[in-house]
Amino acid sequence: MKDCYRDQISAAIDALKKKKTINHFYFVACGGSKAFLQVASYIFDKEIETPSSIYSANDFNYRSPKALNENSIVITCSHSGTTPETVEATRISRQKGALTIALSNQQDSPLWQAAEFPIQYEWGPEVDVSDLNKGILYGLIFSILNTLNPCEKYEHAIQAVDQLNTWTVNAKEKFAERTKTWAKELKRESLIYTMGNGANEGECYSFSICWMMEMQWINSSFIHSGEYFHGPFEITDFDVPFLIVKTLGNNRKLDDRAYNFCSKFSEKVYLVDAEELDLTGLDESLKEYFATPILAAVLRQLVEALAFERGHSLSVRRYMWQMKY
Amino acid sequence: MKDCYRDQISAAIDALKKKKTINHFYFVACGGSKAFLQVASYIFDKEIETPSSIYSANDFNYRSPKALNENSIVITCSHSGTTPETVEATRISRQKGALTIALSNQQDSPLWQAAEFPIQYEWGPEVDVSDLNKGILYGLIFSILNTLNPCEKYEHAIQAVDQLNTWTVNAKEKFAERTKTWAKELKRESLIYTMGNGANEGECYSFSICWMMEMQWINSSFIHSGEYFHGPFEITDFDVPFLIVKTLGNNRKLDDRAYNFCSKFSEKVYLVDAEELDLTGLDESLKEYFATPILAAVLRQLVEALAFERGHSLSVRRYMWQMKY
Repeated sequence: MKDCYRDQISAAIDALKKKKTINHFYFVACGGSKAFLQVASYIFDKEIETPSSIYSANDFNYRSPKALNENSIVITCSHSGTTPETVEATRISRQKGALTIALSNQQDSPLWQAAEFPIQYEWGPEVDVSDLNKGILYGLIFSILNTLNPCEKYEHAIQAVDQLNTWTVNAKEKFAERTKTWAKELKRESLIYTMGNGANEGECYSFSICWMMEMQWINSSFIHSGEYFHGPFEITDFDVPFLIVKTLGNNRKLDDRAYNFCSKFSEKVYLVDAEELDLTGLDESLKEYFATPILAAVLRQLVEALAFERGHSLSVRRYMWQMKY
Repeated sequence: MKDCYRDQISAAIDALKKKKTINHFYFVACGGSKAFLQVASYIFDKEIETPSSIYSANDFNYRSPKALNENSIVITCSHSGTTPETVEATRISRQKGALTIALSNQQDSPLWQAAEFPIQYEWGPEVDVSDLNKGILYGLIFSILNTLNPCEKYEHAIQAVDQLNTWTVNAKEKFAERTKTWAKELKRESLIYTMGNGANEGECYSFSICWMMEMQWINSSFIHSGEYFHGPFEITDFDVPFLIVKTLGNNRKLDDRAYNFCSKFSEKVYLVDAEELDLTGLDESLKEYFATPILAAVLRQLVEALAFERGHSLSVRRYMWQMKY
């Protein structure tokens, strides 16, 4: 990770250290950015006693959680830095005295100006993953954890961010042929379900609402692996396609159970398994967390192959960018 | 509400009063029961500073939130009282010293035995709504709020539970013809999206995963109205059916915006609007909350009509009750 981003994170951390009490971490964004932040809320839930929640930005603005105050930390994200709801959420939170940290690709954007501590990330296929949104987010959240509860594990996690690039390149290579084949098999489907849980919940949700619905106009729904048996599994049939993402750690049991059942009754189950990832050198207790951004790159690779097979570019929209709404 | 249920709620409230600190409310259940509890988490988020979260039971069990301890209140629900994950969540929570309150239709079920404070609810079309799960839940949550922060508004809410039946009967009558017509129009659809937010999020989710996927084998996904414009809206087209549920209060703005856009581009938008409900005598600030269980009854009426039109009984399953999984 470049020094300039480390410095931006450090500035936020210095301010966080000055808070005598932290009552709540709020992660607030929309769509893909919300999905992207979800893993942070999951990690916090497992690692610290301070509560954290995630909201779609306007839900946060209108719902106006009563606990939001000067002891709260609000972390927002918008790629362009212009998403009005997210800018507004940051503005409201700052007005209420909360510490506001915003991630954006765009310096000097409205979000950048609204947040007390803006942090930039880079974008594009050539960028080292540690400087992408994922790298920056992981740098930030493990720095926060290491501030609240300094320990070797979190130090190690902060250092591991610089290995994300290698792990991601390896994973994409490992899945390269498979994702191409899957894209050919899936190209005529008008509906694809995704399933997963835990650290991967956000990325699976993102696959459904951004990659499938928004960018491919393919019907989709994210099904939480733990919820599958309490309703959704009845939709399973030989010709219903499911993309299943398996996590590591304890929550893997939910994915395993869902996968075992689903692949018995559907002939179209596509598995992306975190266990296949090479995370050499990484502390066992961190693997579950670090697998998520790497799996996201594999999913992205699948979507790119699918877009190619279908001749439906990922940049095509019928409403977004085409009209006011 | 019958005195026996009031007494069960009172017992839980007495125990809650003895807690010097409450650090977190956890709502934990699966599928339809999880969806049903979601409104409670929403209400708490708006009304009190103590954080509350909702989990699918095995996610809760495996994730093992760090904040769960003897200062926590865990509210679980399972209709049959046999859902293994929910029983386990209750058991784990009690072991950790949390105050456990469980809602179930079945006395002496495993869940009943696992919880320190079990509360029963009745079931069936002839039962007064105040004795159904919804009535009991609202009695419980407003009793909790009135304990933490005694005021007229919550007193009023507790009393209003006894009017739920009248309001529900009126609402079902008001929507009777429409839901029949909609069922005829929708009966050939293989996919129906639902959209809503705020207090209604759980019921819309339930409509998708329980009513559509589980009980009608119709593909579906719940779309959060605030997330619609950040991905899912690109799936909208003239022939894509959406069931939209509008809430009251501040969060209505999200539903209004989604409805206005969606009904411009889809010719199949079905609106269930809380503003049509007769909630005479109810405090303005409570209407948003009380509309939810009433709207749920209207949705149920629609599903029953749809099941009739499709000749697909709501009690048919291909996996549930048919095999071990």
